Amino acid sequence: MLQSQLFTKTRREAPKDEFAESAKLLIRGGFIHKEMAGVYDYLPLGLKVLKKIEDIVREEMNAIGGQEILMTTLQGAEIWKKTGRWDDKKVDNWFKTTLKSGNEIGIANTHEEPITAMLAQFVDSYRDLPLYVYQFQTKFRNELRAKSGIMRTREFIMKDLYSFSRSEQEFAKFYNKAAEAYEKIFNRVGIGHLTFRTLATGGSFSAISDEFQTITESGEDIIYVNREKRISVNKEFLESKLPGLDRLGLDKMDRSKLEEVRSVEVGNIFPLGTEFSEKLGLTFTDPEGQKKPVIMGSYGIGLGRLLGAIAEVHHDEKGIIWPRSVAPFDVHLVALDANDTAVSKEAKNTYQALQAAGITVLFDDRDLSAGAKFADGDLLGMPLRLVISRRSLARWQIELKKRDAATSEYISTKALIPEVLRAFA
Amino acid sequence: MLQSQLFTKTRREAPKDEFAESAKLLIRGGFIHKEMAGVYDYLPLGLKVLKKIEDIVREEMNAIGGQEILMTTLQGAEIWKKTGRWDDKKVDNWFKTTLKSGNEIGIANTHEEPITAMLAQFVDSYRDLPLYVYQFQTKFRNELRAKSGIMRTREFIMKDLYSFSRSEQEFAKFYNKAAEAYEKIFNRVGIGHLTFRTLATGGSFSAISDEFQTITESGEDIIYVNREKRISVNKEFLESKLPGLDRLGLDKMDRSKLEEVRSVEVGNIFPLGTEFSEKLGLTFTDPEGQKKPVIMGSYGIGLGRLLGAIAEVHHDEKGIIWPRSVAPFDVHLVALDANDTAVSKEAKNTYQALQAAGITVLFDDRDLSAGAKFADGDLLGMPLRLVISRRSLARWQIELKKRDAATSEYISTKALIPEVLRAFA
Repeated sequence: MLQSQLFTKTRREAPKDEFAESAKLLIRGGFIHKEMAGVYDYLPLGLKVLKKIEDIVREEMNAIGGQEILMTTLQGAEIWKKTGRWDDKKVDNWFKTTLKSGNEIGIANTHEEPITAMLAQFVDSYRDLPLYVYQFQTKFRNELRAKSGIMRTREFIMKDLYSFSRSEQEFAKFYNKAAEAYEKIFNRVGIGHLTFRTLATGGSFSAISDEFQTITESGEDIIYVNREKRISVNKEFLESKLPGLDRLGLDKMDRSKLEEVRSVEVGNIFPLGTEFSEKLGLTFTDPEGQKKPVIMGSYGIGLGRLLGAIAEVHHDEKGIIWPRSVAPFDVHLVALDANDTAVSKEAKNTYQALQAAGITVLFDDRDLSAGAKFADGDLLGMPLRLVISRRSLARWQIELKKRDAATSEYISTKALIPEVLRAFA
Repeated sequence: MLQSQLFTKTRREAPKDEFAESAKLLIRGGFIHKEMAGVYDYLPLGLKVLKKIEDIVREEMNAIGGQEILMTTLQGAEIWKKTGRWDDKKVDNWFKTTLKSGNEIGIANTHEEPITAMLAQFVDSYRDLPLYVYQFQTKFRNELRAKSGIMRTREFIMKDLYSFSRSEQEFAKFYNKAAEAYEKIFNRVGIGHLTFRTLATGGSFSAISDEFQTITESGEDIIYVNREKRISVNKEFLESKLPGLDRLGLDKMDRSKLEEVRSVEVGNIFPLGTEFSEKLGLTFTDPEGQKKPVIMGSYGIGLGRLLGAIAEVHHDEKGIIWPRSVAPFDVHLVALDANDTAVSKEAKNTYQALQAAGITVLFDDRDLSAGAKFADGDLLGMPLRLVISRRSLARWQIELKKRDAATSEYISTKALIPEVLRAFA
């Protein structure tokens, strides 16, 4: 893409009402735009990152047998009354609205109730199970405060998968498979090394759940980790005196070997048992002809929060440093002395050659100073910067700098593609 | 995909509260699921169609210079008060809700106001224009009645593009380019022959607008068309006595040569003038240093309505007949006598060979009667059906039937891929 055509512009100053470093940089770079506290638009560069994250999550959900659907935001009250979660005292962050008929309806807080009710129409027999169904759909939460930028918002796209199993054994097997898929996802988006499967309390449906927590100063949670042994438990669980620490060997471990760190929850998986299936009539007939409630599990990843966590982990004082897997573009191509015919011609050729090789490029073709272009490049954070200038061309060279490297190197214009591929390797 | 793993099942009977043929077939086929009147989930097969439509629309919007973003559902009231559209008397189908703070907010009815306010932060100079920005985002409309299945809903994904131009000339040029892109889209999804660019009234912002109307019995609109000359005007405009009929040559035409037909509006484009830019401060400085309001246009396509219109145009009494461009799968592979080892082996080989050739396949591997499988195949409407049975295999053949053909033919198992490609040609 030509940067001259991109409608967003970078800002020097971060808005004063943002506290998380990721939100400051994402707004300064024009990745996101704040509509109100906890409500953010995705602008072209931000949406590209979001879609790349979505594609990675989708691939891993399909790999474990997930079937993708898209449920609705507007939800009838009846099914929520059946599970007792319509009451604002039970779910304290509902957004609700009213039909012309006067009936109150819900603005998707989550989707356990509608997906359970929907599946009850399709599931009859043990032959119909197990099933794994997921979606990317927006959730709305009426948060009292929303201060963590895009890491805790009132409106966010979530990948939510639900598992439907016939036995505890079948459920447990998938639960672990899902946990492994989550680890793959966090590795692929570049935060695996700082993300820990963390023992947590399970809320109303189960004693234990698993959170995936990424260590970052701006996180709202506190976890106790042993980085080497990759053991992690959240503060709440540790203080709860609940059984389960033996699962991690923590019952025998010297707690002083655990480090207390702040973290952000980038994913969670938890057993739902038969809580929803019993109340909403999702049953199956087993081979002996007996009717049984389906055993459910829930598996969530907030895409915007994950994007924020990636920016928290991968930035320096100059801007973001996107991992290539989620970068808006692979290469930031910068033409200096852009009015020089030779430079302009070589830059255009380079732009085309890179794209022809399947490498995505943001081409800074604007008439600006080198300083302004480099500052934008560092802020926007493409993994690789290529600079073409009068000086470099005099030696038939292009300057190549990795965003996370301190120094640059010069490559021959003739060896462009192999050198770029080498830099990514 | 293996049909035995698909969680949806077909239904023999359509729900009694659905009137449009498309909604009946889409529900019977398990493409969609009704949450409440005018509110539908997309199930796996329906979501595949929706995504294919989305991809086609995205390609054509990118081709005319569109930059994709994603705005929010929750919207602050302030910007709407500035344009006077917050008042329920002005916009009579708002859904609204309330923040914990007590402030009322809107549930995206449309996005003119927020996109204009957002762009005001980025646009300063004539050098920043023109701009074309679009999104796929859900709109919510508090419809009193919702009776046309997925063709008029309370919640629907819309592609909305907005143009931002410096002069009327620049605007008019893009407006026509967008109209051409729309015609490409409707051709690509298979309803071009029945879809007419239709002269219409422009609402509050302009005297004239253009609707894209698809002729179908279940449509809510009435248009007057000359199919041969591809001239179309909607009833409301014809009765309005507004000037503009000369644009179509209709001022001189014998009206008896126009056919009155029912239709559904699958897209619309309309000039917004400076209505929003003036009220929300979206201005630019021209080369002479003068501040001017940006000239805007709006370009919408409802994806669900388009999906419904395709199903309205392409079906028979047995089910849907998807055009290949939007079909969930290219081929429906049916194994009869599935317990026969030779049949089962050949079917699996065929399934793999087709996929290796880039042809997507729904493989009916279920243990059901031929009649049940064929009925499902006709209802689900993949463009091509391949049947492997003991009888066909005895002659080393596969039965090939196009969904829209009356008869089938036999192809050699050896010539599978070329024969399938020929059938699609």
